[in-house]
Amino acid sequence: MKIDLFFTPNEVKEEELNNRAILVIDVLRASTTIAYALHNGCKEIIPTSTMDAAIELSRKIGRDAALFCGEREGKKIEGFDLGNSPFEYEAEKIKDKTLIFATTNGSKAIVKGSVGVSLAVGSFVNFQAVFSYLSSNPDDLSIICSGKLDQFSIEDAVCGGLYIDALVKKGVRQLNDAAYAALKLYEIYKDDLLEMLKKSSHGRYLIELGFEKDLHLCSEIDSLKVLPMLNEGRLVRYESKA
Amino acid sequence: MKIDLFFTPNEVKEEELNNRAILVIDVLRASTTIAYALHNGCKEIIPTSTMDAAIELSRKIGRDAALFCGEREGKKIEGFDLGNSPFEYEAEKIKDKTLIFATTNGSKAIVKGSVGVSLAVGSFVNFQAVFSYLSSNPDDLSIICSGKLDQFSIEDAVCGGLYIDALVKKGVRQLNDAAYAALKLYEIYKDDLLEMLKKSSHGRYLIELGFEKDLHLCSEIDSLKVLPMLNEGRLVRYESKA
Repeated sequence: MKIDLFFTPNEVKEEELNNRAILVIDVLRASTTIAYALHNGCKEIIPTSTMDAAIELSRKIGRDAALFCGEREGKKIEGFDLGNSPFEYEAEKIKDKTLIFATTNGSKAIVKGSVGVSLAVGSFVNFQAVFSYLSSNPDDLSIICSGKLDQFSIEDAVCGGLYIDALVKKGVRQLNDAAYAALKLYEIYKDDLLEMLKKSSHGRYLIELGFEKDLHLCSEIDSLKVLPMLNEGRLVRYESKA
Repeated sequence: MKIDLFFTPNEVKEEELNNRAILVIDVLRASTTIAYALHNGCKEIIPTSTMDAAIELSRKIGRDAALFCGEREGKKIEGFDLGNSPFEYEAEKIKDKTLIFATTNGSKAIVKGSVGVSLAVGSFVNFQAVFSYLSSNPDDLSIICSGKLDQFSIEDAVCGGLYIDALVKKGVRQLNDAAYAALKLYEIYKDDLLEMLKKSSHGRYLIELGFEKDLHLCSEIDSLKVLPMLNEGRLVRYESKA
């Protein structure tokens, strides 16, 4: 197996997705929120990269069966049902619902990665569930870090490094430069992920907006056993065979 | 002073260049080669991001006064005078000549950064000369790593980290996520830059092409005292006051 990591969705070229397993990471907060939403019983999550696509979708699904979810600049979008904080995704609100999910960075990365053979969404909170799947999958792996507005985010790099570290321990040897750098950054920060999140550019911004408790939750490795996989444009909870 | 680093030219937004000092880095090999060319007495270097622009320029300057220099996929361009190995830029070949410089990644980064207040080209070989200039310049700094085909290159990140390390020691505190990551990567690799170059994706490619000795030369910190600065679209040797 070969692992290529990309710090932003824009960096990825089409040929680096074809015939690959894809892992999308957006620690703050889309991929953490997706794990919580599926854990708390939503039916499915449809990521859309534009607002127009989200509105079009809700017409098809029907306003009652779907919830509009997403953020712009970290804040809930005016008129939407839910923002991008995992704490908002409580079972009573989302049970059996379809979530139309329009976040700035995470949704874009998922839409971009959807041409791969398979696509999983990973974060710190559901590491083991996602890793078990990846390590039993022989396809070469492309890790797309969502970053922020197509720029590097340290938290996504460090989380990518966590997965790479575990895969390297299983014998993977071929890494691109960014995968190697992500591994090194994980080694530096692994003992204090919360501190890393608090120092990160987006973490500092979320603290300003009043979301410091989100950082605590996003830093907890393996608090959930849920594997979000893309199936015909929808993220669903997948039961890993591992 | 504030430092923002960008791992690829594509990541940089216009507003992150305006009113900034710009440092462009392309360790393998454009920025190292530029340092050698100016050290060995060329008159000036005109970076162009397209072949069309290069040909147009040579018409204006006259074929005798100018040399065509550049590479595609690491190899000299068919019909050009010089490639992108610093060893080719000997004094007898380039003395007082204008070099039209069309490299894949470095030239693109320089053209992109040219809207800044000032633009210097840095590498390992001319660290002190460039650092002296940057540390005496009060403008906020944007470091553009050239990367490779708009993807991350570890050698440019580590070299950016060298400059950031020295600026942080002078009291700079405000770093974006990528600047912070570059600093950490430099700390990891600083004691064996050559080994880092040999393991890098582009380094391995250059070794395959027979350029291993270029890697040795590119890893030598402060072998040259030359500060390449952009002046009206031309890179010239600048005498730092420091």
